[in-house]
Amino acid sequence: MNNTSAKSATLAELAALFGGRVVGDNSVVVTRLMPTNHAGPGDITFVVSTKYLSMLDGSSASAVIVHPDFGYDGKIPRIETENPYLAFAKVQSYLAVRKLECKGVSDAASIAGSAQLAEGVTVSAGCVIGENVKVGKGCYLHPGVVLYDNVEVGEECQLHAGVVVREACNIGDRVILHPNVVIGADGFGFAPDGEKYFKIPQIGIVVIEDDVEIGACSCVDRAAMGQTLIKKGTKIDNLVQIAHNVQIGENTIMVAQTGIAGSAVIGKHCTFGGQSGSVGHIKVGDNVTVVARGTTTADTEANQYVAGFPMMPHKEWLKANVGFAKLPEMRKEISRLSKKIAELEGRLEES
Amino acid sequence: MNNTSAKSATLAELAALFGGRVVGDNSVVVTRLMPTNHAGPGDITFVVSTKYLSMLDGSSASAVIVHPDFGYDGKIPRIETENPYLAFAKVQSYLAVRKLECKGVSDAASIAGSAQLAEGVTVSAGCVIGENVKVGKGCYLHPGVVLYDNVEVGEECQLHAGVVVREACNIGDRVILHPNVVIGADGFGFAPDGEKYFKIPQIGIVVIEDDVEIGACSCVDRAAMGQTLIKKGTKIDNLVQIAHNVQIGENTIMVAQTGIAGSAVIGKHCTFGGQSGSVGHIKVGDNVTVVARGTTTADTEANQYVAGFPMMPHKEWLKANVGFAKLPEMRKEISRLSKKIAELEGRLEES
Amino acid sequence: MNNTSAKSATLAELAALFGGRVVGDNSVVVTRLMPTNHAGPGDITFVVSTKYLSMLDGSSASAVIVHPDFGYDGKIPRIETENPYLAFAKVQSYLAVRKLECKGVSDAASIAGSAQLAEGVTVSAGCVIGENVKVGKGCYLHPGVVLYDNVEVGEECQLHAGVVVREACNIGDRVILHPNVVIGADGFGFAPDGEKYFKIPQIGIVVIEDDVEIGACSCVDRAAMGQTLIKKGTKIDNLVQIAHNVQIGENTIMVAQTGIAGSAVIGKHCTFGGQSGSVGHIKVGDNVTVVARGTTTADTEANQYVAGFPMMPHKEWLKANVGFAKLPEMRKEISRLSKKIAELEGRLEES
Repeated sequence: MNNTSAKSATLAELAALFGGRVVGDNSVVVTRLMPTNHAGPGDITFVVSTKYLSMLDGSSASAVIVHPDFGYDGKIPRIETENPYLAFAKVQSYLAVRKLECKGVSDAASIAGSAQLAEGVTVSAGCVIGENVKVGKGCYLHPGVVLYDNVEVGEECQLHAGVVVREACNIGDRVILHPNVVIGADGFGFAPDGEKYFKIPQIGIVVIEDDVEIGACSCVDRAAMGQTLIKKGTKIDNLVQIAHNVQIGENTIMVAQTGIAGSAVIGKHCTFGGQSGSVGHIKVGDNVTVVARGTTTADTEANQYVAGFPMMPHKEWLKANVGFAKLPEMRKEISRLSKKIAELEGRLEES
Repeated sequence: MNNTSAKSATLAELAALFGGRVVGDNSVVVTRLMPTNHAGPGDITFVVSTKYLSMLDGSSASAVIVHPDFGYDGKIPRIETENPYLAFAKVQSYLAVRKLECKGVSDAASIAGSAQLAEGVTVSAGCVIGENVKVGKGCYLHPGVVLYDNVEVGEECQLHAGVVVREACNIGDRVILHPNVVIGADGFGFAPDGEKYFKIPQIGIVVIEDDVEIGACSCVDRAAMGQTLIKKGTKIDNLVQIAHNVQIGENTIMVAQTGIAGSAVIGKHCTFGGQSGSVGHIKVGDNVTVVARGTTTADTEANQYVAGFPMMPHKEWLKANVGFAKLPEMRKEISRLSKKIAELEGRLEES
Repeated sequence: MNNTSAKSATLAELAALFGGRVVGDNSVVVTRLMPTNHAGPGDITFVVSTKYLSMLDGSSASAVIVHPDFGYDGKIPRIETENPYLAFAKVQSYLAVRKLECKGVSDAASIAGSAQLAEGVTVSAGCVIGENVKVGKGCYLHPGVVLYDNVEVGEECQLHAGVVVREACNIGDRVILHPNVVIGADGFGFAPDGEKYFKIPQIGIVVIEDDVEIGACSCVDRAAMGQTLIKKGTKIDNLVQIAHNVQIGENTIMVAQTGIAGSAVIGKHCTFGGQSGSVGHIKVGDNVTVVARGTTTADTEANQYVAGFPMMPHKEWLKANVGFAKLPEMRKEISRLSKKIAELEGRLEES
């Protein structure tokens, strides 16, 4: 009923996808990956932690993916791998995901004469493609995508319905933009003129590198000058704001509703939790993790784990929160101690 | 000038809408509902609190809706009811809201041959409807709505301009989706592969039950497997993020910019204030209220009133905030006490 | 490569744009404004702080904009002005911004017979314009803009792709709405009916005054009755929520992901930082600044600088945050003092 199509594969074929080792009959055929509690004959399942191992007892699944150290030696044929979660993702991709078939260019799309569409490109109804736009081979533009003049899109991208990419922005290969994403809107820049604000032209662009994915209704603003840059492999969730002149390193994760202020430079392999953020004009090193609702409020060294606003090391923030909850009690205790001291002073005076 | 059309009604007719009791001439005719300070002849107004009763003095309104316990006995004919606010909503709906007239299917819409549109469906210009889509009777699709393949929409729904519903998602009856809402974008799931992230296919769907309303630019992601579920009567404001595999109970309220993380299960009759949220993989009971900017950070029993991040009972949070503001003072006092004690110790040594 | 086109100008011409004073050869011609570290022959650059003055040493820029008090007296011809940042904005606008050329009305747009388009209006492919809509002269509607019935748009506005303006809303002159902005969605109003919520019709409108700019995916809801009002010159960033019946004063700044709750009245010349907000039904005076993530949680006098949730004066909030980080230490100290006092009491008893 959705965008999937059952394929079938032997355990040998699946193990080859992720370098797994089959224990049991490697010619067993499966057609579906299912959670352990729903898996039946013909299904392969997976276990990512020993605490779920017992769910395999009595299961009629045809196969299971497990870590060799889990010590599973039940009767279900298994594929052992160091990373069952990754194996799950690869098997699911293999069994369940159908490549979108090229549908060509819809009569109900509007395409400028100077636009260049490579072979195998789908342009759905309602799409509008500007002058000098280039779209690489195998791209799939769902309905209502708008590419302003001079946009360049690499190969094998998926641009979902309602995506807008403004003039001259540059999208890499295999990029996925979810519905209603906006790339290249003007950065938020105004020069105060006493009474009013004068708009600072935003004449830069946005560059989205290969293998980036950006969630629904997220916005990446064009630079004032130069470029806003999202590097390779970075994954951005829904309703995220990336301001002008920001640079985000490779393979960084930004969970929903995060906001990165202007000119911040974020490292690679960072993780920003939900509703988190960064102030602008700072540098955040590689491998930094910001917990949900936290904000990098100053330059941040690599490998930090931070929380709060202003930010603190996560461990200290946890302890401070314990203190926060005890503030009423602390105030009472301070008041008690103060009285005690006054008493003691009185008694010392007397003696 | 807007989507309203003045009707007229007697007080008897209006009282029947909400089981009210007319005191005074029940044949009085009104045509408009207006706030007390703007109501004149031909208008009905309403009072939701005794503190606004005095505004009726000298008012030329033709009628008023009041609670019987307010003790209003002025000269304006009144309709008494236990819930004047609800009565206001019902009278306003009756007098001011015109049902959208069916306009049929626009020539400027693109509709797949296998799509099934029931009678009385409006499909406006720029809409794109995929294969095997079913749209129930009386639905109104404003311009530019995109329904991917296999979507099912119930009866009497209103889908506003720019709404996107991705493949195979399921919308109930009388659902209202405001402009640029995105239903069924991929959930945010990636398996880390050391260096990079591998996309976990999101092959589940979204199910939106009857009488749900979802605000502009809000996003409800499709499940990794199975379904993301918004139950009957739940009302979601603008720019809200509902992650994959979340379940939200019946008649729950989520104010703007709230974010619910993946696989959270939220009860019925909950209220999430503005910019609030929930972490993922937890269970929140029925009738839980989360104040603005609060977050349910752990499993939460029914009937709780919580605030903060991490969450605390609201009352304790209020007290802790008082303490927070007094922290500088507390630090000074602690320092003073510390010196005093040192002094006392010194004096005791001496004596 | 983007929406810019190099013009050229003499220093005399540029100085006239902002009332600057040329020191050196005022017939020097420049074609581009560039940051100091990238400026070469033919470029004009600017310096907004003395700390960047040294970057001019060895620069081959043809001209520079500086404050007279910076004391620059190097060999590069300069234009002196009290506000180099504003001068930068004006020069950039002059040199780099090309007015969008009118393209007329696309055949692929859908325009109601009763709509009135003034001269010089561009209506791009995929736009849908309802009955009785009025669009003023020089407006540019990018692809896929939807104007519901009875909308009025002033002159010289730019409405970007995917913008939706619902019925009867009113847009002033020179307004810029970035992609996927939603104006006039229903306010979030429901009357609880014990079990369920009954929708309160939102029959008001939105009024956006002249020179307002609203960022991508931001939402301004229509009033329940009356109007939601954004006054002249106010600039709103991306993903901002403005609820029903809010009023925002002139020349106010709202950074990304801010949320203003229903019926709040915000003054002029206010600044709301990123991810900040206001609770509803309060009044915020003129010139109030709310730092990032702060929230005006009560009526706020003019000229305040506030932070936090609940809000506090910014200075006190900074001090309280220092205390927050020291909470674990404070708890230890309180515990130490408590023991000391018990000891002292014991010793006094003994003596």
